[in-house]
Amino acid sequence: MTTSADLSPETAVLDCLERWAAAVRAKDVEAIVAHYTPDIVAFDAILQLQFKGLEAYRRHWDACMALCAGPMAFQIHEEVIHVDGNVAFCHGLIECGGANERGEIDTGWLRATIGLRRIEGEWRIVHEHHSAPFDMTSRQALLDLTP
Amino acid sequence: MTTSADLSPETAVLDCLERWAAAVRAKDVEAIVAHYTPDIVAFDAILQLQFKGLEAYRRHWDACMALCAGPMAFQIHEEVIHVDGNVAFCHGLIECGGANERGEIDTGWLRATIGLRRIEGEWRIVHEHHSAPFDMTSRQALLDLTP
Repeated sequence: MTTSADLSPETAVLDCLERWAAAVRAKDVEAIVAHYTPDIVAFDAILQLQFKGLEAYRRHWDACMALCAGPMAFQIHEEVIHVDGNVAFCHGLIECGGANERGEIDTGWLRATIGLRRIEGEWRIVHEHHSAPFDMTSRQALLDLTP
Repeated sequence: MTTSADLSPETAVLDCLERWAAAVRAKDVEAIVAHYTPDIVAFDAILQLQFKGLEAYRRHWDACMALCAGPMAFQIHEEVIHVDGNVAFCHGLIECGGANERGEIDTGWLRATIGLRRIEGEWRIVHEHHSAPFDMTSRQALLDLTP
């Protein structure tokens, strides 16, 4: 059996993030928040400047999942991981979306930066930053950009 | 004389970020980009999904500075720094803005996450992520939020 102690640091971090992304696709909020530390500070793409602490961010995930009917896309691309000792961060693009009225999945692209600490041998997410850029003139979020 | 080798790791990272922020306030693009590695990947608040590499991001900074007349505000708040060995990341809120037609500085708040590596003893920025959240219904960037 392969345990996280056998993996390279980058692979162990990516393994944590892939399990987190799978929990998002499964819309399993308990499995999502199991990756977070109690003092997580999250900058999500929508609604508020920040969510401070696990309970505030869990309520936000609950609200987000209530908005999404049907299957969900949530895939990390172009990920780059920097890790040394017990601190790591990863940046990448996330292709995400949900089913439209015809049952087809419409996706768009967001940017993600995720900060982690290794605590008692396990990688945990201490910070997330998700966003779309906006247009300076119209102030509209640019949700149709592709890499 | 205090050198970066004498500082705690967190203080050395914050010192790098405060010098970077001072370069932004001074609108000194050469001093800004002196903090970056050649392979920086930047997710800025406006325009594009990402800027890959120092030259692409330098051109973006040049274009941004051309838009800003008069004095500029750019102050990091609520910063949290995680560092181990030669890798660090920092998240915080940036109060930024420029002069309006009456010469007064109007500011707003953005979120920032900055990833760094220590290379030959000096901290360098390898990744930046700046953003405003947006409203799901109107798709408008939420530029009037305050902490």
